[in-house]
Amino acid sequence: MIANITESSLYRIINPRSIAFFGASNRFTSMGTNQLNSLKALGFEGNIYPIHPKEKRVLDLEAYQHVQDLPEVPDLAVMVLPTQVVPGVMEECGRKGIRHAIVVSGGFKEVGGSGVVLEKQLLAVAERYGIRFLGPNCLGVANPHHKFNMTFLPFEGRPGFIGLASQSGSLITQMFGYLRRFGLGFSAGISVGNEAQVDIVECMQYLAACPNTRVIGLYVETIRRGRAFIETARAIVPHKPIIAYYAGGSEAGRRAGFSHTGALAGPDALYDGVFRQSGVIRAHSLTELFDFCSALGSCPEPGGNRVIIQTHSGGPGAAAADACSRSGIELPALSAPTREKLAPLVPHTGSVSNPVDLTFAKNPLDYFETIPDILLGDSGTDGLIVYFLAPLQSIRRTMQAMGIAEEQLPELTEKLFTDQARALSKLIEKHQKPLVGFTFQGYNELFVRTLLDHGIVVLPAPQRAARAMAALVRYRQLREKIRSKAVE
Amino acid sequence: MIANITESSLYRIINPRSIAFFGASNRFTSMGTNQLNSLKALGFEGNIYPIHPKEKRVLDLEAYQHVQDLPEVPDLAVMVLPTQVVPGVMEECGRKGIRHAIVVSGGFKEVGGSGVVLEKQLLAVAERYGIRFLGPNCLGVANPHHKFNMTFLPFEGRPGFIGLASQSGSLITQMFGYLRRFGLGFSAGISVGNEAQVDIVECMQYLAACPNTRVIGLYVETIRRGRAFIETARAIVPHKPIIAYYAGGSEAGRRAGFSHTGALAGPDALYDGVFRQSGVIRAHSLTELFDFCSALGSCPEPGGNRVIIQTHSGGPGAAAADACSRSGIELPALSAPTREKLAPLVPHTGSVSNPVDLTFAKNPLDYFETIPDILLGDSGTDGLIVYFLAPLQSIRRTMQAMGIAEEQLPELTEKLFTDQARALSKLIEKHQKPLVGFTFQGYNELFVRTLLDHGIVVLPAPQRAARAMAALVRYRQLREKIRSKAVE
Repeated sequence: MIANITESSLYRIINPRSIAFFGASNRFTSMGTNQLNSLKALGFEGNIYPIHPKEKRVLDLEAYQHVQDLPEVPDLAVMVLPTQVVPGVMEECGRKGIRHAIVVSGGFKEVGGSGVVLEKQLLAVAERYGIRFLGPNCLGVANPHHKFNMTFLPFEGRPGFIGLASQSGSLITQMFGYLRRFGLGFSAGISVGNEAQVDIVECMQYLAACPNTRVIGLYVETIRRGRAFIETARAIVPHKPIIAYYAGGSEAGRRAGFSHTGALAGPDALYDGVFRQSGVIRAHSLTELFDFCSALGSCPEPGGNRVIIQTHSGGPGAAAADACSRSGIELPALSAPTREKLAPLVPHTGSVSNPVDLTFAKNPLDYFETIPDILLGDSGTDGLIVYFLAPLQSIRRTMQAMGIAEEQLPELTEKLFTDQARALSKLIEKHQKPLVGFTFQGYNELFVRTLLDHGIVVLPAPQRAARAMAALVRYRQLREKIRSKAVE
Repeated sequence: MIANITESSLYRIINPRSIAFFGASNRFTSMGTNQLNSLKALGFEGNIYPIHPKEKRVLDLEAYQHVQDLPEVPDLAVMVLPTQVVPGVMEECGRKGIRHAIVVSGGFKEVGGSGVVLEKQLLAVAERYGIRFLGPNCLGVANPHHKFNMTFLPFEGRPGFIGLASQSGSLITQMFGYLRRFGLGFSAGISVGNEAQVDIVECMQYLAACPNTRVIGLYVETIRRGRAFIETARAIVPHKPIIAYYAGGSEAGRRAGFSHTGALAGPDALYDGVFRQSGVIRAHSLTELFDFCSALGSCPEPGGNRVIIQTHSGGPGAAAADACSRSGIELPALSAPTREKLAPLVPHTGSVSNPVDLTFAKNPLDYFETIPDILLGDSGTDGLIVYFLAPLQSIRRTMQAMGIAEEQLPELTEKLFTDQARALSKLIEKHQKPLVGFTFQGYNELFVRTLLDHGIVVLPAPQRAARAMAALVRYRQLREKIRSKAVE
């Protein structure tokens, strides 16, 4: 394992200071142009040198006819070129002294036949010059902390803590908006494509050392180096969680993966075993992959699997309880002191069992401070799942009925939500126990946005909250097992 | 079974012409006030009579001190009152001649002890006067087609086709926004609470006859009349699909249900058997309940389980393929004629196996018309799953690069999306096969909204699309089994 990120051979692929860009023009129907545009749009701070046979300027940057003409040796070459010319261009880059590349072009091993031969040629050229390269057939890298995004779509949102190594490029570039909505972001997203040379194992090593990465996510269609994968993961997991989604588990998934990145996937049970042995948490859908990343990157570690559900609505509470049970989470009865503390706050129609169902709460503000404080303070609980609902219209109506002027409502609502989110966030800090929320409200609504902005995990369904909580519990177990050198 | 909705004893509970409203005041911190406000906000067209001991007017409506004072006999009494007084008020309503009621008040059977006794009293009074009532401990009814919503939250969105009978009131009132985002809505949402008298079986009969209801959803914590449930469902399923989510399957879910509505739930396997025997499709989460309702209420019936996946991104395609396999959906190879037709439209980096992966499509517009037309036309396919992505920023940039003026962009983008959605919608009509889409884009984005507005099912993850497609296949199977009188 590397101790410092700069020791990684991927360092200059993910943090380049200067880039030679092949395959962009001024036509926006071309993929390369869109990628160069994304790079510019995020405000990349180093030099960018478009290489173009005819154009003098490409997207307002000075263009060069040949890589040999460049005034410096760039850290990185990006190639979005017709398949056939890629090995030749790699050769020219090698001669110029470039030692890192990202090959976006497809048409290699994944299409079979002559593509397989071309990929071998490409690899041979790169190795002759000591070039490390991502791809081919990848969408490259998004490292928003470095203002570096050369994927197809412009970056949205904020830099975050999820380090994703993906055998699907779309799951980097097409997830920007998705992650932004959930208050998340990439520390680095790396699309590995066909893994002709750099593979996810090397990416995991990089992400393990990356200070911006709190949690490592993997989208897997195949693991090409099983032994290295297991050893690397086991070295990382005691320090950082790894979550993997495996798409090749079924016959159809396997076939889809093969035509996508030439991946030869194995049976589901085999991969399940590999993940288990590696200490990697398995997500069973893409949604779960990011849900688990969110919880594991945001929440304190639970001491065990005993969780309380806080709700004011029976149905969502019962659904959460059922999902917890199915995910291996225990819902203990509340301790006598906790029940006593709750009694004055809960109306007679409510319930102080678990779920704690407040029904129509006596004081709605208790929901965000007094009550979670009591529940998290119960020594018999390891975490809290909370149902969130704050109907803006009703809240404003109540404020109006209290005599507050119309024009003050927006400011006061915002203050109310901010106070509530801050209170919850402080409670998590104070008790050092995980809190996972869920809601049926929209992710563009002020209330949900405010909670997310305060680092509170809010998922859009009770089942997803329960499973994310279970992933937190699972990580603790896996880590302990690896630490104690026991093999599961 | 009833042939006409007006024969249902629930008809005037769900379609009242006039209402006596107990428990609303001018204080917006009270539940009753909020409920009356919701009723007014949707523009209920009949007479509303607030009953209040002191106020002369309640929310700008003339208030009455006693129900006896009312100038007519209203169709319905709504009670949001302290538990103790409910049986007495029911008695007064009976004397006035009112024959339908909704009892929102909680504190009955679900809290045990004296609550159980009070519920028996309430039932006895109602039966003495021949009153049919919903509840107690319910949130009542939302029938947007009748501009009738007396639940806690104001109605949002449009009247729709989902008839939901729910043992959780929140799942009616707190789902308005959720359904609106997915382009859905209730035909009628009925919260049954403790089911002292009216139960979900009676609601199913109503919804089966309701012309606005295309699909029946159930949120179940317990089934109190097993035999009646099975017989009623089996009579309905040949004509209308029923989808149920059962929250009491685990020990924790069971306990939560009990403290919620006094439900005595049974083991998971028992309910699984009941649903199977009834021809009811089981949803395994609340999310699935509404996903399945969406697909079954919107899509033509598939002829079988052979589905094609259309994508331009390998990862989302592989994830959908894997999820299909796990849901019992077959992904057949494309026929030779289909492959021939596709060949000129797919670049060499793409794949004409299943998933059909177009990668960077030659002509993006083919994605919404020519290609799905070919795929749905393949005689070996019963349905299509489509991955949707339309990044607004990139589309506008391409338009600009084509020389289109800035000020024309919004209109042209809207037209583009509308044309695409209309084309897809016509293809579904033409081929009479289901199309289920999925996307990672947000549900407030123009592209997704336009698809939904054209009745196209779009779910937020490949797994959810696969499982919704599987529910369509399952319904066909269940219906055929019941029609052939075979018991599974």
